[in-house]
Amino acid sequence: MVVEPASSSHPFDEALTLTPREPLTPSAAADSRFWTARTHPLYQNMVGPYGGLSAAQALQAVLMHPLLLGQPVALTVNFAAAIADGELTIEARPLRTNRSTQHWSIVFTQADGIMLTATAITAARRSTYSAADLPMPAAPKPGSMPRASREERPKWFERYDMRFVTGNMPEWNGEESDSLTQLWVRDEPARALDITSLAAMCDVFYPRVWLRRGRVTPAGTITLTSYFHVGAEELAAADGSFVLAQARGVRYFNGYFDQSAQLWSEAGLLLATSHQLVYYKQ
Amino acid sequence: MVVEPASSSHPFDEALTLTPREPLTPSAAADSRFWTARTHPLYQNMVGPYGGLSAAQALQAVLMHPLLLGQPVALTVNFAAAIADGELTIEARPLRTNRSTQHWSIVFTQADGIMLTATAITAARRSTYSAADLPMPAAPKPGSMPRASREERPKWFERYDMRFVTGNMPEWNGEESDSLTQLWVRDEPARALDITSLAAMCDVFYPRVWLRRGRVTPAGTITLTSYFHVGAEELAAADGSFVLAQARGVRYFNGYFDQSAQLWSEAGLLLATSHQLVYYKQ
Repeated sequence: MVVEPASSSHPFDEALTLTPREPLTPSAAADSRFWTARTHPLYQNMVGPYGGLSAAQALQAVLMHPLLLGQPVALTVNFAAAIADGELTIEARPLRTNRSTQHWSIVFTQADGIMLTATAITAARRSTYSAADLPMPAAPKPGSMPRASREERPKWFERYDMRFVTGNMPEWNGEESDSLTQLWVRDEPARALDITSLAAMCDVFYPRVWLRRGRVTPAGTITLTSYFHVGAEELAAADGSFVLAQARGVRYFNGYFDQSAQLWSEAGLLLATSHQLVYYKQ
Repeated sequence: MVVEPASSSHPFDEALTLTPREPLTPSAAADSRFWTARTHPLYQNMVGPYGGLSAAQALQAVLMHPLLLGQPVALTVNFAAAIADGELTIEARPLRTNRSTQHWSIVFTQADGIMLTATAITAARRSTYSAADLPMPAAPKPGSMPRASREERPKWFERYDMRFVTGNMPEWNGEESDSLTQLWVRDEPARALDITSLAAMCDVFYPRVWLRRGRVTPAGTITLTSYFHVGAEELAAADGSFVLAQARGVRYFNGYFDQSAQLWSEAGLLLATSHQLVYYKQ
């Protein structure tokens, strides 16, 4: 049985197609569910899949679980090893279900062992006090801006329509600069925004150390945490519009740095905040 | 056998004392290690233990594991349920060991089930490019400031010497304000800073929604992610000095908000950045 995504025509939905399979081990917990997923040739990064796609696949395994309570509010993805092209097994398990929150464990496995671990929290939200203390930065409307070049970029860049307000790829001249990037981003082809595509977009930024140093530096995300500040209704209202995505590096120390990101809807709603720790060499 | 902490006289070290025990289930992974820990009466919060202490206990289980590689660089703690007073079982397992990084899973269990899950990443750092793009805010020296009152506060507040630069407890007059808090903080009694006490201090802030709204709002952290930007040497250099800790809320939406924090050494080194998602009611 293949569980069909909402639309089978978009490559993102193709990449989120999970096929139920038997447990990997006989001792697996009774409430664990196992799926077969595949990497997608259109979402490949320099090594392995685009991290945002893996995050979305992890979340998709939670969303498809029959015991799901509520909607995602937090997701932490740990990139343990480079996922090989082809099939992978995803295990999702609710470790604790409370009255209004649920705690999840997600594990990706391939022949080489555990490739990715994640934890997620889903929650049944109630209407209550809301506020946002981080206003959307001023930016020209995306319609007035050119789409960024995809030349010499990994495949997954082509899956996003990116329009840089500031902080496009550096000149590689070795000049240190502010690591701030702001860009409008939308799935390519356009696709209605949902929690999985939002989770993927949280990782849409190239490593801040490139911009900070202005020199080629091997780097890769090792852990990504995203908080979701919207429900399905607010996401549906954002529809297929662009998202303003902003990221900046914080502290670089002996091989690891962190960067923090914020994503707003075109209407100015702060949809998600996201943080990651990135390995860098040299 | 009880593994002795560095100093058995400090309550924080008492609270980090873990006693090896047999696996909870016969099917436990061979590389899992199980410990018995206890809540500590001096680190109690309004309900259950201080979250920072639980984070430190989770990290301690990793640090004591015989297969440990390197030092902690990232820790995510998910508070699944309110830990009951008394004994708990901590399981720590390395899920993936690479050449320079190691990915960990940590689970707290009590009679009521799984109470806390965590993932951690440890890494063997190498000396390389370093930079910090978030300078320490200007603040008077801690020695010139009074220690904050501990009246009507939970027990764990007494375990820290807190000196507020700004954003001490609100007046509860219902006036909305900036949620920024800056304080100097040190263990009470003073204790040499290490990675476990730094992990605990990342949770030293009361919920931002209290300051933001100026009204009593039931709230509790559901997930906490901290990135550590120091090695053991830098921590040893900071010694028993104060840490400048800063936190601010970001987005409050229908029952969940996030807050971000930074912790600097008295010498101005950015030691850790930390983010959490907090549940709030009403």
